[in-house]
Amino acid sequence: MYTINPNIESLYCIKCGKTYPLADYYLGCPQCFHKGENAALSFNYNSLEHNPSTSKGIQKYSETLPYTSLPTLGEGNTPVVKHEALATQLGLKAVYLKNEFQNPTGSHKDRMSPLVIARALELGKKGVVVASSGNAGFSIAAYAANSGLQCTVISPRTISNIYRTAIESTGANLVILDAEQDTTQGRWAYMQNLVETQDLYPATNYILPPVGSNCFGVQGYKTIAYEIFEDFGDSIPEFIFVPVSRGDLLWGIFEGFKEIHQLGYIKVLPKLICVEPFERVTQVLKGADYRSRFQGNYALTGSIGGNTVTYQALKAVQESGGDAIATSQDDVIASVKAFSEAGVYLETSSAVTINALKLAISTHKLDKNSRVLMIATSNGFKNDPSIMR
Amino acid sequence: MYTINPNIESLYCIKCGKTYPLADYYLGCPQCFHKGENAALSFNYNSLEHNPSTSKGIQKYSETLPYTSLPTLGEGNTPVVKHEALATQLGLKAVYLKNEFQNPTGSHKDRMSPLVIARALELGKKGVVVASSGNAGFSIAAYAANSGLQCTVISPRTISNIYRTAIESTGANLVILDAEQDTTQGRWAYMQNLVETQDLYPATNYILPPVGSNCFGVQGYKTIAYEIFEDFGDSIPEFIFVPVSRGDLLWGIFEGFKEIHQLGYIKVLPKLICVEPFERVTQVLKGADYRSRFQGNYALTGSIGGNTVTYQALKAVQESGGDAIATSQDDVIASVKAFSEAGVYLETSSAVTINALKLAISTHKLDKNSRVLMIATSNGFKNDPSIMR
Repeated sequence: MYTINPNIESLYCIKCGKTYPLADYYLGCPQCFHKGENAALSFNYNSLEHNPSTSKGIQKYSETLPYTSLPTLGEGNTPVVKHEALATQLGLKAVYLKNEFQNPTGSHKDRMSPLVIARALELGKKGVVVASSGNAGFSIAAYAANSGLQCTVISPRTISNIYRTAIESTGANLVILDAEQDTTQGRWAYMQNLVETQDLYPATNYILPPVGSNCFGVQGYKTIAYEIFEDFGDSIPEFIFVPVSRGDLLWGIFEGFKEIHQLGYIKVLPKLICVEPFERVTQVLKGADYRSRFQGNYALTGSIGGNTVTYQALKAVQESGGDAIATSQDDVIASVKAFSEAGVYLETSSAVTINALKLAISTHKLDKNSRVLMIATSNGFKNDPSIMR
Repeated sequence: MYTINPNIESLYCIKCGKTYPLADYYLGCPQCFHKGENAALSFNYNSLEHNPSTSKGIQKYSETLPYTSLPTLGEGNTPVVKHEALATQLGLKAVYLKNEFQNPTGSHKDRMSPLVIARALELGKKGVVVASSGNAGFSIAAYAANSGLQCTVISPRTISNIYRTAIESTGANLVILDAEQDTTQGRWAYMQNLVETQDLYPATNYILPPVGSNCFGVQGYKTIAYEIFEDFGDSIPEFIFVPVSRGDLLWGIFEGFKEIHQLGYIKVLPKLICVEPFERVTQVLKGADYRSRFQGNYALTGSIGGNTVTYQALKAVQESGGDAIATSQDDVIASVKAFSEAGVYLETSSAVTINALKLAISTHKLDKNSRVLMIATSNGFKNDPSIMR
């Protein structure tokens, strides 16, 4: 069994600010939900300190996580690599990658999964359930298998053979709904029913408009900010590019930096750049309602897909002074190639950050003196080889 | 440009002991080669010390590597993970994995490639060449691309679409010979010709009997031993299971532990267990000549394939007090599943270590009190999904 952090004071709504006692609120903030303004909850800790332990991986920062001990497969502690050739080619002062694809299941999701599993075990659940056709599904399935928990992964019919094989190899139950139910809404309704009727703990969002993944899990992404701070001290790159679907990763990184800022270790927050496959957060920044449905193509970049925006993604961009950049499906393969030719093999949804970076340069959102860090979220061996030909 | 270690005293033959001035000897020990007793060269350092630097990754141990500065993609510093459920299931005191699949290109080869690239750059070569259809080919291709060196990968026609796509995405020149030349000997002869006529630096072996890969590169594997020592101190697991083709990894780990032993930090060497797809080193330990050709099936485990043995593999097993264990192709898929159900997704050639471990237990080569570490060399996303069905 794992140990809940005794330092948790309460949960709070990231939109209305209302606080709640420590518990599970699957619909995000109950008050905002009833107003139709769906928004995520996050954690207030009694005292904020930065005393990294000698543990390896994300447990090093467990004082700022919901659990102070955690299951592990070797997640976190990923390298930051400086890419001088890329910087020269792009005309920037410095370009860094944070290699999240070096996590045990090949993506950043491994910072979320241990917290979800620890919570499910403490609640005595018989299993976990996740709606995903990719990284989240495989990561949760691997950690569940490792802890002896059942796992159900609800996936669209478009799941690739590669992910399907990986997820099924863990012993997880992969559910693919009939054609007529195979919509985001259909899968989420199916998941909600499992959560309410089977003793399964939800790892990901199932309401619409979405709030984001399980808030215990999202806390795990704060460790990326802490690791970046350990690498750079007070000279963190001004811009951090983050691939975004529902913004769990973006929010977690933002909250980590916000804590480090509150502790007085950094003077300004890095600007978080939301990288998306078409205009979603971009539209909201121009005035659209964050609860709208957005239309666009994301066929080649399923891991950052979806037609929705979350409040957490919007807030992380706005409060960090960042921006959103919509990439193009026409540039996906070229983006994978551009990284590969620098020696870094990334999943399509991860590789498009370089497309976003080029767009940011060409539209003068950053200049020659800019220092940029890109979160390289996921491993290129997860790409279907046929798309590269 | 990278810095050669000023502490290198000479190269030495691991078989006859003859020393040579620092240079490149592509055929291994020239004296042994002329006697038809092919054997690898290794490095003598003037003074052996253990002062790990504050660098991350393999450069932390650069005092014991041929280059004290190196190109990097974020290799090394991989986690050791304790697997309690596996230990219970197998009836062992403790089971650990060293997660080499978390290296930047998804395998241990990333500890070799930076040294090969550093050497090629110092020699002013226009490129590198590697004979491989898998991990070594992709790793060298990625590091070459990152350093702006040309790369030629010579592969059999059986190369999977997955590796082919990955290697080609780096911009490397993938050479697949005509059917009649497509033998190990044919590919090696082709490689030798490129090395002798084209200013390309060889990363891997091209003579028969083989000696192993480029000896500058093989030194990189010593860092695995140093990392394991940092994790365990003087209570290193007694048995270390290592997947073996030509034994570069096995030899490098052995030499690292030998150095740590000479420094007086550990009292006994861990026993290195050579995991092979059929009896090769196993046959040599029973009396066969190490220069023989061995027949057996390795279709599902190409990364540990081949019909030969190297002197380095044999010596590492014998001098560590270890053993060799031949696995079976019949158990490959079950081995992948066994690891996946513990949350670890491995390439087939890596996963069969659990098959070897089970054989070692059933033949009483280790007992209930044994502590075992397996080198988890390579990522399961490199498997062709079709083999798992």
